[in-house]
Amino acid sequence: MRALVYQGPAKKSLEQRPIPEIGASTDAIVKITRTTICGTDLHILKGDVPSCQAGRVLGHEGVGVVHQVGPSVTTFRPGERVLISCISSCGKCMYCRRQMYSHCTSGGWILGNTIDGTQAEYVRIPYADTSLYRVPDDADEEALVMLSDILPTGFECGVLNGKVRPGGTVAIVGAGPIGLAALLTAQFYSPAQIIMIDLDNNRLEVAKRFGATSTINSARGDTAKEVMKMTGELGVDTAIEAVGIPATFELCEDLVAPGGTIANIGVHGAKVDLHLERLWDRNITITTRLVDTVSTPMLLSSLRANRIDAKLLITHRFRFVDILDAYETFSHAADTRALKVIIEI
Amino acid sequence: MRALVYQGPAKKSLEQRPIPEIGASTDAIVKITRTTICGTDLHILKGDVPSCQAGRVLGHEGVGVVHQVGPSVTTFRPGERVLISCISSCGKCMYCRRQMYSHCTSGGWILGNTIDGTQAEYVRIPYADTSLYRVPDDADEEALVMLSDILPTGFECGVLNGKVRPGGTVAIVGAGPIGLAALLTAQFYSPAQIIMIDLDNNRLEVAKRFGATSTINSARGDTAKEVMKMTGELGVDTAIEAVGIPATFELCEDLVAPGGTIANIGVHGAKVDLHLERLWDRNITITTRLVDTVSTPMLLSSLRANRIDAKLLITHRFRFVDILDAYETFSHAADTRALKVIIEI
Amino acid sequence: MRALVYQGPAKKSLEQRPIPEIGASTDAIVKITRTTICGTDLHILKGDVPSCQAGRVLGHEGVGVVHQVGPSVTTFRPGERVLISCISSCGKCMYCRRQMYSHCTSGGWILGNTIDGTQAEYVRIPYADTSLYRVPDDADEEALVMLSDILPTGFECGVLNGKVRPGGTVAIVGAGPIGLAALLTAQFYSPAQIIMIDLDNNRLEVAKRFGATSTINSARGDTAKEVMKMTGELGVDTAIEAVGIPATFELCEDLVAPGGTIANIGVHGAKVDLHLERLWDRNITITTRLVDTVSTPMLLSSLRANRIDAKLLITHRFRFVDILDAYETFSHAADTRALKVIIEI
Amino acid sequence: MRALVYQGPAKKSLEQRPIPEIGASTDAIVKITRTTICGTDLHILKGDVPSCQAGRVLGHEGVGVVHQVGPSVTTFRPGERVLISCISSCGKCMYCRRQMYSHCTSGGWILGNTIDGTQAEYVRIPYADTSLYRVPDDADEEALVMLSDILPTGFECGVLNGKVRPGGTVAIVGAGPIGLAALLTAQFYSPAQIIMIDLDNNRLEVAKRFGATSTINSARGDTAKEVMKMTGELGVDTAIEAVGIPATFELCEDLVAPGGTIANIGVHGAKVDLHLERLWDRNITITTRLVDTVSTPMLLSSLRANRIDAKLLITHRFRFVDILDAYETFSHAADTRALKVIIEI
Repeated sequence: MRALVYQGPAKKSLEQRPIPEIGASTDAIVKITRTTICGTDLHILKGDVPSCQAGRVLGHEGVGVVHQVGPSVTTFRPGERVLISCISSCGKCMYCRRQMYSHCTSGGWILGNTIDGTQAEYVRIPYADTSLYRVPDDADEEALVMLSDILPTGFECGVLNGKVRPGGTVAIVGAGPIGLAALLTAQFYSPAQIIMIDLDNNRLEVAKRFGATSTINSARGDTAKEVMKMTGELGVDTAIEAVGIPATFELCEDLVAPGGTIANIGVHGAKVDLHLERLWDRNITITTRLVDTVSTPMLLSSLRANRIDAKLLITHRFRFVDILDAYETFSHAADTRALKVIIEI
Repeated sequence: MRALVYQGPAKKSLEQRPIPEIGASTDAIVKITRTTICGTDLHILKGDVPSCQAGRVLGHEGVGVVHQVGPSVTTFRPGERVLISCISSCGKCMYCRRQMYSHCTSGGWILGNTIDGTQAEYVRIPYADTSLYRVPDDADEEALVMLSDILPTGFECGVLNGKVRPGGTVAIVGAGPIGLAALLTAQFYSPAQIIMIDLDNNRLEVAKRFGATSTINSARGDTAKEVMKMTGELGVDTAIEAVGIPATFELCEDLVAPGGTIANIGVHGAKVDLHLERLWDRNITITTRLVDTVSTPMLLSSLRANRIDAKLLITHRFRFVDILDAYETFSHAADTRALKVIIEI
Repeated sequence: MRALVYQGPAKKSLEQRPIPEIGASTDAIVKITRTTICGTDLHILKGDVPSCQAGRVLGHEGVGVVHQVGPSVTTFRPGERVLISCISSCGKCMYCRRQMYSHCTSGGWILGNTIDGTQAEYVRIPYADTSLYRVPDDADEEALVMLSDILPTGFECGVLNGKVRPGGTVAIVGAGPIGLAALLTAQFYSPAQIIMIDLDNNRLEVAKRFGATSTINSARGDTAKEVMKMTGELGVDTAIEAVGIPATFELCEDLVAPGGTIANIGVHGAKVDLHLERLWDRNITITTRLVDTVSTPMLLSSLRANRIDAKLLITHRFRFVDILDAYETFSHAADTRALKVIIEI
Repeated sequence: MRALVYQGPAKKSLEQRPIPEIGASTDAIVKITRTTICGTDLHILKGDVPSCQAGRVLGHEGVGVVHQVGPSVTTFRPGERVLISCISSCGKCMYCRRQMYSHCTSGGWILGNTIDGTQAEYVRIPYADTSLYRVPDDADEEALVMLSDILPTGFECGVLNGKVRPGGTVAIVGAGPIGLAALLTAQFYSPAQIIMIDLDNNRLEVAKRFGATSTINSARGDTAKEVMKMTGELGVDTAIEAVGIPATFELCEDLVAPGGTIANIGVHGAKVDLHLERLWDRNITITTRLVDTVSTPMLLSSLRANRIDAKLLITHRFRFVDILDAYETFSHAADTRALKVIIEI
């Protein structure tokens, strides 16, 4: 089969690989029909993810058809259409039993990281019964691909952790794909205001179309002041960090109202300054989270009920033979205006 | 009347003052019978609390007898014994209606800060109906003084925010009065482990007597390692910061388990390093809080039911004429082993 | 002034009354601009509410302008436009401090019940600071009248108590005004399904327009079976009872899924059969509630943000002189298709 | 092996059976070292549990040693000491993923009901990885047997569902083993009052020893009045039903305070009257639950930390050959004062 293989920092190639085989009895082999590229894949290619070694097939998102199942798999049979979760969950360990699948002691984020991933014709999925979700044969596969990672991440790390609520006020710092996923899923809770903050006017326009009630280009430098003005000088109930650098996290510290929450989604490479000398008495909450994908069943229900238009996030489509072009397009998002790219296999 | 008056940084005196008078119709005048000194009073004397100006009568804790009430006060009558909350709550503003009395738009922590306080023979209490609590005539006044500030602070900022729970593991960094108040109130929830961490062996011995299941003298420098060993290499579900300096907050970052909470109680004068490069994917929560005293009714019930021995915190007793000695004792706690000092008026 | 006065069972009249005067210092007198009629007013007229005696001015909903305030009122001034809550809250008692205003020891539902109400040119509002809400001068008064009672009732008793959530399934039994208020406010949480159940096809058509995803006319008698079919034989996560008779409550017992909630809104005059022999092991929750109007600030924010179209509930408009016609129309809802009637004063 | 076999209503015998064998790959065979008898076993013998057919080995509680494991079992190895949960959980189905193991689509309460149980020398445990708990070799096995069913049932169905909290008031109706288990575990949350209600003075004396703050013999008939007196005429925050008949459930309706909760544990054979005509506006919650044993890890931690004295519940001990005597003793509890009987195998 063909597979997109990480060859060490800044190097990747589309190459031939053997079709993966059942290893453990709980494995399934899934024939991929559609996958996508994640910001994390770009991180790997920068050499920022030491757990991912050269030779690894990338990708942790996708939809496909069950090809083969191990003898212990009871929920799925060959031929069934499935959504692949970016998080593998054994269903047995202390963390899985607490619904914290991200910290599964033998799973978590391993696909396209410590084991071969979904940017290939076939993928081996460990713990298939608790890491795959059956989907109707007539479901829209493109929309479903958004449920592997980006929508649960925006929803769990940003919206749920941020306690977005009816009548509340939300600021989302960063209008990239993940910030926009938070924007889309925040609307499940009908907040009164969703203020989108970014440096890129194109993305802010997209945010407006996706439901932001107002936008701020933070290049102007008085973002906190503007947010205060928009919120009656209170600040926001929920500040969602969707960038991953100190400046944006510290902006959130300036935006959050007394009693509010900063929900971090960003993948940070450096420490940030936490201004406890100002915040110690402000009754705020700060949360971090690697997505657990515990919300996948709920997102599937919402998608089926047309409560969310997941395909809004998709800007480009490629055939698998053109996956290197897809990477090119996705990694130059400022120019290409790419959000999520669909790769059909 | 006599009153302890802040005279600017490092200066205080016991002087004569006129008995306060009803200002607003919601005021009460309370004749103080017992008060105490708080770490915050020492902060004021260091000049660290700019809102508190020279000339201010200090103190925000105490028990007394209602002397006079304004015409709108409906809950209390002269002669009734009352507990004074360190937080004044108007009961009407947006924050009070959300039970976040600490941020009351015209109250909050004002006693002994922006208005005259309780280290005096009489004190004017604004919003008496929602800032005083009636107590039985036969109640133990010394125990009650611990409910003005220190026990609700340890409980709300540390225990409730820290989500202490049956079977859980707790580390409390700082075995001063506030850390010990968190220790006492954590036991309402019967956690499996409460690890107390401090530099002072005397305080750690006290912590043992107060219910800590283990103690660590952090002078040895391998505190995180020891906590990991004590918790099966998981870290603690709840790390309570009860000191207020960067080193202790950052220690909490090292102690907290995936899925756990850092509950800050400490009053910080400087920013801290938040190591998001390590913590972004650990599913942790960090909270800050100025006490709301929303738990006062519950603490009164618990005290009445003998579910907590509040007097354990009291180490010294003084007459009001000796309040300068009380300050001396309290401010040299390392030598005097003072926790809370009772001043009888 | 003119006022609609209850004259004992089945009797009411529009008569002259003196303008009410400030009694307690916390009172305000509000000049009513718009009011409405509630199902409860009809209950009173049937003689079913013994606390309401002949001679009482009816009505507990309305919008108006502050005419006069008592000396303790600090939040409002004459000339300000206000929304009147159907629940009077002293802000001081144990229940008010727990946000359970419905059980305020000196307030609760008293307007148009134990004290004169809002179907008059002027009304005296006790505890004005904590029972009125300021509204912008340019706000839509008709929409606001829906926030006095019906929307908070549907939301708090039905939606919040019923734990309506994104992706969840909801059945609402009763498509009268209160069921429809639950339907409108349930959509704040974007459930996947909202099944509306009633005997009246007109009301079910209205429900469709208001956002129901499906409707069932329960006259057919196989309602539970139909709901099971619609929910994959699971039942609903939330069953909202919005009628108030044994048959509809017991229907909810048949509809609720394991782990689900029955949220009662209906005013019941008789006991119901609770089939614990079937339900004891089903992990269900049943809730009852008199509206607390604790959600009024949130509903005001949502209205301002156009997250809810409150005016959908309004079917008829009357001048105050025609209030007897308004009662006629409202009490023959099956024929007139009345939901809420606005009375302009 | 020997096994206690249900022979149809009122009949049981100790007979020889073959040692069970691994059926599914997720099974384990456990050699039982200690088991006990549950009130449910008596229900079965009365013929009240139609799902349990003649020929069934009874028992769903116990501690033992892993004898054999199926090829998919990864958590346990032969020779390891384990606690058996009364609830079998597949770990994969919709309910298991929501932590509602009681409703596991292929598990739930099946042991000693629809499959052979633990009152035997060996038992087959389905879904071993998610239905067994490893215990230290030196753990007290008698205490552990209390964690198979009775303590999690009292805790989850009574204490957690009843929202027992520090400072709160609790009434437990029924001082049999399950009511006493609720009493023991309620103390994890340090409520101010726990009022125990029963007809049997012996059991009420036991309750006193176990931590009840007061007791009422309901034979006197004025129980509600006494509870009102004990709670300042408010009623209790939590009323726990631990009997399972209409009279005791309806008593709970009379005891619960506005805003409080009735948590049903009792197994009911008949419907009860729910007095909504009195309760519709009282803001109460009623819950039902079959134990999920989701709290087993927490109870194991608490036991290890000596936060609970589980062995208090044990009154009698028998050898396995004398299990018919054990049944005799347990089923005549009024005379024998039996609570839980330990059967050593």
